[in-house]
Amino acid sequence: MYIGIDLGGTNIAGALVGPNGDIVKKYAIPTDAERGSDAVIQSIIEVITHLSDGVEILGIGIGIPGIADPITGMVLACVNLNWYNVPLKDKLSNAFKAPIYIDNDATVAAVAEFVVAQENKYTDAVMLTLGTGVGGGIIINGKVASGTHGIGSELGHMIVGEGLYQCNCGRLGCLETFTSSTAIIKYARHLLETTDTPSELRLVNPLHIDGEFIFNAAKNGDMLANQVVDRLAKYLSIGIMNIVSVIDPQIIVLGGGLSHAGDFLLDKIKSQVGTLKYFDGSDVAKIEIAKLKNDAGLLGAAMLATL
Amino acid sequence: MYIGIDLGGTNIAGALVGPNGDIVKKYAIPTDAERGSDAVIQSIIEVITHLSDGVEILGIGIGIPGIADPITGMVLACVNLNWYNVPLKDKLSNAFKAPIYIDNDATVAAVAEFVVAQENKYTDAVMLTLGTGVGGGIIINGKVASGTHGIGSELGHMIVGEGLYQCNCGRLGCLETFTSSTAIIKYARHLLETTDTPSELRLVNPLHIDGEFIFNAAKNGDMLANQVVDRLAKYLSIGIMNIVSVIDPQIIVLGGGLSHAGDFLLDKIKSQVGTLKYFDGSDVAKIEIAKLKNDAGLLGAAMLATL
Repeated sequence: MYIGIDLGGTNIAGALVGPNGDIVKKYAIPTDAERGSDAVIQSIIEVITHLSDGVEILGIGIGIPGIADPITGMVLACVNLNWYNVPLKDKLSNAFKAPIYIDNDATVAAVAEFVVAQENKYTDAVMLTLGTGVGGGIIINGKVASGTHGIGSELGHMIVGEGLYQCNCGRLGCLETFTSSTAIIKYARHLLETTDTPSELRLVNPLHIDGEFIFNAAKNGDMLANQVVDRLAKYLSIGIMNIVSVIDPQIIVLGGGLSHAGDFLLDKIKSQVGTLKYFDGSDVAKIEIAKLKNDAGLLGAAMLATL
Repeated sequence: MYIGIDLGGTNIAGALVGPNGDIVKKYAIPTDAERGSDAVIQSIIEVITHLSDGVEILGIGIGIPGIADPITGMVLACVNLNWYNVPLKDKLSNAFKAPIYIDNDATVAAVAEFVVAQENKYTDAVMLTLGTGVGGGIIINGKVASGTHGIGSELGHMIVGEGLYQCNCGRLGCLETFTSSTAIIKYARHLLETTDTPSELRLVNPLHIDGEFIFNAAKNGDMLANQVVDRLAKYLSIGIMNIVSVIDPQIIVLGGGLSHAGDFLLDKIKSQVGTLKYFDGSDVAKIEIAKLKNDAGLLGAAMLATL
């Protein structure tokens, strides 16, 4: 059996997972990050101990909301938790015999998608998670590829244009400033303020305008919402083609909250990607919506040990 | 012994190469691409036959100015040669017993740089060739990574901005429209026509303004030439950081004609990359100028067989 931990800003969620990706037991406690990293790590140990009671554990995987050195298991930076250079793997290795694997939460979601939901069909695959930010996970030759310094597969931080606002990372033009829910909310507000385009978005409290609201309005034919979604589709397609221009994978899967827009989003992306192909005759990666909606973080973390 | 072939628009150059990357013998004949692919392939066979006379050949590698399927050895597209879907590997396999390897010329240059000049020190490495266009070569886990469909490592076609002119590939904003010699010549002309900035470039026949001329003027303090080079440095740094955001290699090497500008270019790039790091504490890939200036195409093609 394996243990997967999804370390989030709100909860430390854990699951005991069988070798085929079946969740046997779940357990979660609040993160309370303001206690500091030592106290949070103590809580992670508590979750693992609870889940592993009486079971032989072959591996423990942790998905973190930030970047980690894949070899040393040092958490380099988790901005939301205020963690910098926290030796997470070392501290957990002192408490447990099983091997410990630590990787970024989007990478972990990719592992869940490709190992569990897609049943290991692909050896070279990419996942883009479209949520509050944009994350990325890359599998090359059947192995997680998070880079030499742990800063690879940060696909939301590819620079793809000029951008409307500064990214969390301090730079201009990052993919996530065009294709996250944060980005489309900001761009919708920008259009509401700077244009007269009629829109049902003008009829609601601005605080109620989130990614789902914008996509639903677009599906209903709202012109302004469609401008917002089309801009997302344009830049997401550029991001996808940039991934193709670097590693040309077999498949690119879209996950995260915005991916729930399903075929409405997928059709726009596929048509844009078609126009962006730089050689008409070439095949490109399949583009799909993620199959796995829930528990990706828990499953993927557990499955890190099997790759 | 190995044979490396550099298939160019002008010549089919070949070399007999020892296992340590020592060139034993060279031979070249004109490409005369207008004869069609069958006649050119016959000439390639002639070069290989001449070089392999009386020697045991362990592998034959061909660097092509286009994209190829790495598995089938089908040349998908070489625009300059007017080749589309040419089964180069099949045709050569009928003529020779040794295994045949076919890859893009920038990938082949990367193999020469990392296997021969850098003596296999790096397992995860990227080369950007800055010439008339911009090419890319990627080594991951010690193997050439040209992608599932042969369209990976086309790093000159990452989209990094809005761009001044349409790329050869038909798209706007490709890295090579900012960082090739073609790009800086066009941008220099644009500044000459649209600004009054004093410049020694105004004093010469526009036909004499090439990449080397612009870099030399910039080194001499010419303001307009420095604007041109700084724009190249800005977008090349974005391209480099995008490569880092995807695969985070150990090293990125700059080759091709513009890389002869040496430290003048390298210092500008390193300073821009520093400002583009999205997490101050993280290490990023080393950035260096290619060590190998000549024969990279021949050596790298021959060394394809050793990876």
